[in-house]
Amino acid sequence: MSVESILGQMGLTLPEPPQPVAAYVPSVRTGNLLIVSGQLPFAGKSLLAKGKVPTAIDMEQARAAAEQCVLNGLAIAKAELDGDLNRIKRVVRLGVFVQSEDSFHDQPQVANGASELMQRLFGEAGRHARAAIGVTVLPLDAPVEVELVVEA
Amino acid sequence: MSVESILGQMGLTLPEPPQPVAAYVPSVRTGNLLIVSGQLPFAGKSLLAKGKVPTAIDMEQARAAAEQCVLNGLAIAKAELDGDLNRIKRVVRLGVFVQSEDSFHDQPQVANGASELMQRLFGEAGRHARAAIGVTVLPLDAPVEVELVVEA
Amino acid sequence: MSVESILGQMGLTLPEPPQPVAAYVPSVRTGNLLIVSGQLPFAGKSLLAKGKVPTAIDMEQARAAAEQCVLNGLAIAKAELDGDLNRIKRVVRLGVFVQSEDSFHDQPQVANGASELMQRLFGEAGRHARAAIGVTVLPLDAPVEVELVVEA
Repeated sequence: MSVESILGQMGLTLPEPPQPVAAYVPSVRTGNLLIVSGQLPFAGKSLLAKGKVPTAIDMEQARAAAEQCVLNGLAIAKAELDGDLNRIKRVVRLGVFVQSEDSFHDQPQVANGASELMQRLFGEAGRHARAAIGVTVLPLDAPVEVELVVEA
Repeated sequence: MSVESILGQMGLTLPEPPQPVAAYVPSVRTGNLLIVSGQLPFAGKSLLAKGKVPTAIDMEQARAAAEQCVLNGLAIAKAELDGDLNRIKRVVRLGVFVQSEDSFHDQPQVANGASELMQRLFGEAGRHARAAIGVTVLPLDAPVEVELVVEA
Repeated sequence: MSVESILGQMGLTLPEPPQPVAAYVPSVRTGNLLIVSGQLPFAGKSLLAKGKVPTAIDMEQARAAAEQCVLNGLAIAKAELDGDLNRIKRVVRLGVFVQSEDSFHDQPQVANGASELMQRLFGEAGRHARAAIGVTVLPLDAPVEVELVVEA
C-alpha cells in the first residue's frame, strides 16, 4: 500500500511543503541521502501549538506537534522526489528538539509522535536512528522541531 | 591490537547493546555510514548518573557518563557489524549534548570523556568531528547524551 | 568569480583555521562529504562576542558571530581541500545553535548571518538545509555555534 494511502486511512493529509522561515532551503540531496531542514509544527501559516512542554503544551499536544513536523518534512521530501513518497527507501535519522520546562525529561515520549508516524507509514523502512533533546527555546516559540534524513 | 583488547587493558567492557527507550532503532546503516542513535549513560538498566553538570554531577562524573555513552554506542555498532568493532574504519562525528546549569560553559571538557576514549580505542581512525552543546534538560535527567556516526 | 574573490569584495578574510578547543579534529571527510566540527566565533585567539542573545548580545552582534563561525568553518574546509574553496560543490547542511535567553525565539534571524554568507559566497550551491535551535549555554559562553556539512 502506498504511503499516501496509509496517510489517507489515518485521516491525515500532507500539507503544502512549508517554505523556510529564513535564508535556507527546504531540503538538499547529497548522494542517495535527502537532508530535510528542521521542521516546525506549521499547520498552514500558523503553528499548531506554541509554548513549552509540559506546561503550556501537554504531552498529547506535543506528540501531535511532532507528528505535524514529520508531515511537513514528508511534504518537502515528496516535492523533492517528483511527487512520489514511495521513493523513500529508508528513514535514516530523526533529530527531535523539544522546547522543555526545566524539570521535563520525557522528550522521548514527545519524539515518539514523530517516530511512530514514520514506522506506521513506512513499516520496517521507517525504523530510524534518533536523537531526542530538550532545549529552552525554539524558533517562533514552537514546542517541537524535527529534522529528517532519508535515503531515496 | 584489537579494539576489544584495548578496552580490556583499560579495564572496560562493552555492555549489552542498550535497547531504545522509545520507538526508534539503535542504529541505521546508509551506504558505508553507521548512524547510532543518541545514547544515554545507561549502565545496565539504570543511568550511571542523573542531574545537571556541574552541580548535581561534577566534571569527573560527567566525563565518565560521556564515556559510558560511547561504550553503549560501540556495543550497538558491534552488534550491527557482525560482532567485530575492528570493522569501524573511521569515527566520523560525535554529537555531545550536556545537561548544563545556566552558568556552565565547559561542555568541551565533558565531551572529551567521549572523544578521548574514541581516540584511545581507534587511534588515528578515532579522531572525529564533533559538536558539543549545552542543553537544559535531557531524557530521563541524564547528564549527557552522545550520538555517533562511524564509517564501516 | 572565486569564493575568495567574493570574500575580498565583501571586505572579509579567512582566518587561520581554528584549532579544536578539545580532543577532536577540525573536520573529517567521508565519501564526498566533509563534516566540519561545531565552530565558535573565534576571531584570532578570543571570541568575537560572549553572552546570551538578545540581552548581552544584540541581533546584529549575534548575526556577525554566526558569520564568523562560518568563516572559521570555511578556513578549515579550505585547509582540507588543498587550499581551494572552489572545490566545495554544495553546502549541504548548517546546524546553528544560539545561546538564548529564555524568551528569545528569533534563532532563524541569527542563523541567517551564517546562511546568507554561504549563499553570497557560493550562489545556488550555497543554498543548504538547516536546523536552528536555541540552547541555554554554549562552550566558552559563545553566543553561537555552527557546524557544517559540505560536498566536495
